[in-house]
Amino acid sequence: MVGSRVFVALDPGVGESLGYWLNIVSRLCGGVAGFKFGLPFLLSFGVDGVRVSRGVCDSMFIVDLKLADVGDVMVSTVSRLVGYVDGVIAHGFTGFEGALGELKDYLDSVGVKLALIVSMSHAGSLDVLDVNIDRLLWVADRVKPWGLVAPATRPHVISYVKSRAPWAKILSPGVGVQGARPGDALRAGADYEIIGRAITRAPNPLEVLQSINLEHEKIMGERGVGRV
Amino acid sequence: MVGSRVFVALDPGVGESLGYWLNIVSRLCGGVAGFKFGLPFLLSFGVDGVRVSRGVCDSMFIVDLKLADVGDVMVSTVSRLVGYVDGVIAHGFTGFEGALGELKDYLDSVGVKLALIVSMSHAGSLDVLDVNIDRLLWVADRVKPWGLVAPATRPHVISYVKSRAPWAKILSPGVGVQGARPGDALRAGADYEIIGRAITRAPNPLEVLQSINLEHEKIMGERGVGRV
Repeated sequence: MVGSRVFVALDPGVGESLGYWLNIVSRLCGGVAGFKFGLPFLLSFGVDGVRVSRGVCDSMFIVDLKLADVGDVMVSTVSRLVGYVDGVIAHGFTGFEGALGELKDYLDSVGVKLALIVSMSHAGSLDVLDVNIDRLLWVADRVKPWGLVAPATRPHVISYVKSRAPWAKILSPGVGVQGARPGDALRAGADYEIIGRAITRAPNPLEVLQSINLEHEKIMGERGVGRV
Repeated sequence: MVGSRVFVALDPGVGESLGYWLNIVSRLCGGVAGFKFGLPFLLSFGVDGVRVSRGVCDSMFIVDLKLADVGDVMVSTVSRLVGYVDGVIAHGFTGFEGALGELKDYLDSVGVKLALIVSMSHAGSLDVLDVNIDRLLWVADRVKPWGLVAPATRPHVISYVKSRAPWAKILSPGVGVQGARPGDALRAGADYEIIGRAITRAPNPLEVLQSINLEHEKIMGERGVGRV
């Protein structure tokens, strides 16, 4: 489904086999915007696990390491995944010079997209991140990434980010187990919802995905936005 | 050398062998406070590379993933390394509830130390992090980690952190290639300096380490602080 607004998060538990997750990737492949994986996936299955997953499904793969280091370490990290990933998620708060500026230049040179986190889905995001959202959007404006990450659990944050950075794709985690309902983030202006356990731990993941896709299509129709 | 104030950062380049780094760990083992490794090391050598390194030297191993995720993802990540690491570095800006509070509880339960980053060594740290240092120290005060991370490149930040959180060990990266001289951070009040390439890329790493240890011992003597 070319028009899906869902990135499926692949979050393996300790001791789970790569086969289990390859099966999920393979079954959902045609119905997603892409997949997202992070440190739990990489520590369980290594870079090779990413390569194999990508071989099973030629969809968009985003690596979500919540990168938040100096530029050369972020570049050194991502360079090990180039060829297997289409997008990278980094935190916005590390700032431009010596960090995100260097990362963005590198990603542009290898044709990989960048999405910057400006707010997170948990309560502690209010301690430091959310009170700094204008600073984070100022950083984002300098970096000009493909996307911004803002939480489905706080739709007003999504609306604000959308109004301040209309040029960016907005990706929203926090749907399902973390509290937001599928569709909440799209209604608030997000472009994609990142959904993990609500799909991957369902008895029939494909059925859940398809029903969310239908609901999303309806919402985007109401917003007057066509297929991706 | 029990009294060393140096954590050696293990930052492998793409394509380097684990053997090269095991040799460094083995040669420096007796003269360091410990070793620090991050994503480049883990993506190159996997969790098994950590296990093997730890087998070569029974020193303190700190994993520096710059953790900055929701609590359950940080716990899931670290749980894959328990048994091989003694400390974990996380960012302070993710806040307490649903993030660092959960991580700290978990680390306490498995006997692993936590160090929180409150400022970084690169120029972009001034964009968002450094103007929020009081908020980050407020988070640190709630989490009460073993250590705080503040940059050797800005000694006045170290002095400020030390004055606000005298209960914490201060670890300072940014020595050598990033600009600070060995000893700068200790003079400002840090407890440990994290040094990478200036030692690991030297023709004789052990000689460089030993000369830094001597310089450090002199500084700690001037500060009136004895051996660790």
